[in-house]
Amino acid sequence: MSQGVEWGLHCATLLAQVPDGALVRREKLAQHYGLPEPYLAKHLQALVRADVLRAVSGPRGGYGLARAPELINALDVVEAIEGSAPAFTCKEIRQAGTGALSPEQCLRPCVINSVMTQADNAWRSSLRSVTIADLTHRLPKWVRKHNVDVLTEGA
Amino acid sequence: MSQGVEWGLHCATLLAQVPDGALVRREKLAQHYGLPEPYLAKHLQALVRADVLRAVSGPRGGYGLARAPELINALDVVEAIEGSAPAFTCKEIRQAGTGALSPEQCLRPCVINSVMTQADNAWRSSLRSVTIADLTHRLPKWVRKHNVDVLTEGA
Repeated sequence: MSQGVEWGLHCATLLAQVPDGALVRREKLAQHYGLPEPYLAKHLQALVRADVLRAVSGPRGGYGLARAPELINALDVVEAIEGSAPAFTCKEIRQAGTGALSPEQCLRPCVINSVMTQADNAWRSSLRSVTIADLTHRLPKWVRKHNVDVLTEGA
Repeated sequence: MSQGVEWGLHCATLLAQVPDGALVRREKLAQHYGLPEPYLAKHLQALVRADVLRAVSGPRGGYGLARAPELINALDVVEAIEGSAPAFTCKEIRQAGTGALSPEQCLRPCVINSVMTQADNAWRSSLRSVTIADLTHRLPKWVRKHNVDVLTEGA
């Protein structure tokens, strides 16, 4: 999994802590976590395309959440970065080789594919159950204060 | 995810269908699903190391399940092929950059890491809940008969 998932979840959670939804410049986001700005930029763009973040250009621009943190879940962020294709892809090997079944014999999904899909659904469902607001509330109050202090320093 | 996961799950499920736990030669397993034998060999070796399959060498040798199919679950096979490391690795970026927290401030796990670990656990738990015996029983009776007929043909 791309390191961008960690970056995206941290940035979205950080932006949810900024008072009054103020925008944060990309440079400041990158510095906050010591991330390489050009790589972060790519992931932030993906998050904007997925309607997780909004980007405002110009001297007073920056990044903010595109929606209320209660309306963005961890899966939204992960899928924005990684795409929504399952990690397992079924090549229907039951239809190949000397044991091949005919297409007509394979109208029901392969049992192997089903068990992998069920696990993938459990993974997505777990991520979907946690919002960015949940993540923010799980941080101790002093961490949130620390983050806001650092972000607004010299602003 | 490696295609070997699909191969490994199919081969283990197939071997569970062979009457009296008879061994199946690697060549025959590869041909059954039209798989390249050298690549399959690598994955079968991993399954033997993980105590999912047993390999017997010699003219009457081949592969069989190492344990009863009720005692092997889908996660055993997936982890044998893919390893057991989670797809997400936390780089502790909360301890980096201008917003860095000190190690003493990070005694509790990162909330981002926790949510990703929880999803990984849900995925593993789903795979752990399905045994090779379950997979075999989900196959229609005529598919199982077909598989046994093909495997014992010319034996």
